[in-house]
Amino acid sequence: MRIHNFNAGPAVLPLEVLQEAQREIAETAGSGMSILEWSHRSKEYDAVRFAAEADLRELMGLQDKDAWKVLFLQGGASLQFAQIPMNFATTQKPGGYVITGAWSEKALKEAEVLKAGRSLWSAKASGFVRVPRAGEWSAAPDLSYVHITTNNTIYGTQWSSLPDCGAVPLVADMSSDILSGPRDHSKCSLIYAGAQKNLGPSGVTVVFLRSDFLEHANKGLNAMLDYSVHVKADGIYNTHPTFAVWLMGRVLAWIKRQGGVSAMQAANARKAALLYAEIDRTGFWRGSAEAASRSLMNITFRARDQALEAAFLSGANERKLIGLEGHRSAGGMRASLYNALPHAAVETLVAWMREFEARHG
Amino acid sequence: MRIHNFNAGPAVLPLEVLQEAQREIAETAGSGMSILEWSHRSKEYDAVRFAAEADLRELMGLQDKDAWKVLFLQGGASLQFAQIPMNFATTQKPGGYVITGAWSEKALKEAEVLKAGRSLWSAKASGFVRVPRAGEWSAAPDLSYVHITTNNTIYGTQWSSLPDCGAVPLVADMSSDILSGPRDHSKCSLIYAGAQKNLGPSGVTVVFLRSDFLEHANKGLNAMLDYSVHVKADGIYNTHPTFAVWLMGRVLAWIKRQGGVSAMQAANARKAALLYAEIDRTGFWRGSAEAASRSLMNITFRARDQALEAAFLSGANERKLIGLEGHRSAGGMRASLYNALPHAAVETLVAWMREFEARHG
Repeated sequence: MRIHNFNAGPAVLPLEVLQEAQREIAETAGSGMSILEWSHRSKEYDAVRFAAEADLRELMGLQDKDAWKVLFLQGGASLQFAQIPMNFATTQKPGGYVITGAWSEKALKEAEVLKAGRSLWSAKASGFVRVPRAGEWSAAPDLSYVHITTNNTIYGTQWSSLPDCGAVPLVADMSSDILSGPRDHSKCSLIYAGAQKNLGPSGVTVVFLRSDFLEHANKGLNAMLDYSVHVKADGIYNTHPTFAVWLMGRVLAWIKRQGGVSAMQAANARKAALLYAEIDRTGFWRGSAEAASRSLMNITFRARDQALEAAFLSGANERKLIGLEGHRSAGGMRASLYNALPHAAVETLVAWMREFEARHG
Repeated sequence: MRIHNFNAGPAVLPLEVLQEAQREIAETAGSGMSILEWSHRSKEYDAVRFAAEADLRELMGLQDKDAWKVLFLQGGASLQFAQIPMNFATTQKPGGYVITGAWSEKALKEAEVLKAGRSLWSAKASGFVRVPRAGEWSAAPDLSYVHITTNNTIYGTQWSSLPDCGAVPLVADMSSDILSGPRDHSKCSLIYAGAQKNLGPSGVTVVFLRSDFLEHANKGLNAMLDYSVHVKADGIYNTHPTFAVWLMGRVLAWIKRQGGVSAMQAANARKAALLYAEIDRTGFWRGSAEAASRSLMNITFRARDQALEAAFLSGANERKLIGLEGHRSAGGMRASLYNALPHAAVETLVAWMREFEARHG
């Protein structure tokens, strides 16, 4: 029986995509081989990566190939934390970081290792319960870029829209909410995302780079850490994580079949509304994030009586609702409602919340 | 029909492993989820990575967990080319590189970017047809390490045994011949290999590090590029490429079922002997590498009449023998005979070589 998977990432994938993987993994596309055995320089793999890139560009609304370059890299957001300041920041002109959670803190720390990072605003004192309001921070003109984390997986907060940074380039870590709904990506100069939440399996990182931003990149870097090297190699400087790219392509095709990012947003908003309504219904539960900053992707909550939480989580596991434990640094509960999570999973969770409240309320 | 896959990497995988992947990919180990959906922090994934590490240590003969650390990283050998000198070399005490092909050249180049690399010997003038003979180079005591590439995929040469570097630590890129046979790994201080030739799919890089070597590592690096950070995080600093590790684990289990590295060596030697004998039989073909440096993994050869090569390769494709084109920088033919390549594939290739020679000889 298929479980209701609320994992924060790697996370639930569309069942249709898993079934496709099962059909294709021993012999892919009638090639007499598995995708796992294809050369990354073969015409078969070229078709896979070009289709994935085209679908990703279409879904992101970034089709202009001159203005935007797309890379499929490795190392997750964690390597991007280092690679971005290496390529774009200096001590004289640091990257500015808006600190809305543990991941943006880590991003800043990697810039600081290079003596090229500056904190612009932090929600740490509040326990990261919200993102900044307009006017609480600004993009000083001496910055190389402003870095934000659009969705904060651990704390369950999300930027409802991208900030305006004037002439300063905006760099956005969208690992945990990419393609969850429409967004004006043209405001950004660099967008990156580990695939393992909304795009596919772990092992591939998507990077969108504006060409005019790349023109100002630092020189003299090691090849694998130099975005220009990857761009000059047509996005395939070294061996791709070919299967991860293939599977991401299947997820992107699935998103398109569902109706694209608008359909994702509608479904995600319905799932989140159902769960937040239950959290707010009686006061038995309490949402962890401030209302205006609530994430549609990762919903964090506590029981009013925190001593009940272990029993709630244990009962959830018995009902095949898994991955609901809050991050070890935050405690409580966290339900990750990524694109691929079926509505029925949230209904099952809400039913268990009601049953639990009826017993303990 | 399954093709005879002589790709240089990503490369052929054991059919049993592909069938296992097909059985397990939609729902893995009865978990109600796919391995693709498991958290990298779950007990299920811990079991996968710990088993893969244990099998890898056993097959490498490096079981001492205090003396040797094992990491599953991303970015392939190409990222290791940079990471190794970052961690271990300085301008005052550079890494020394024995240049036996394009990949060792690239490794040296990344050390040179950091002003921390020195060439010790090069086969470039000969077209990389051999590895050095004893006495042709030496490990000067002012080196941080000596770096070698044990097998040269493009040129078809291989070190038949690891060199003695005295007190200077030996760093070995074993990407294209790891676990192809027994080897005295205790001579090394760092061993690395991209998985996509003998270990599994692309997307994971295996690194073995001696603890006493790591103690002398440089400080102040970005986290993802600092081996110590990964070691301190028990090998899981950030999200693993979980499926690639799972599949590598299935390949390692398959190697053990075949009888381990001795069985691999016996099978590989039989395959290589069959093909080299055909290459040497009449003079119609010519082996590209010097006899004493011939690789058991990647066998490079030309037709005496090079104008016939295109017809030979085209006929090979018609007979479901694929991946036999030499690297674009070398030309001619290359047959990669990795562990998972069945003996029958080489027999089919040799039969086509005889048929072709009978027509054109």
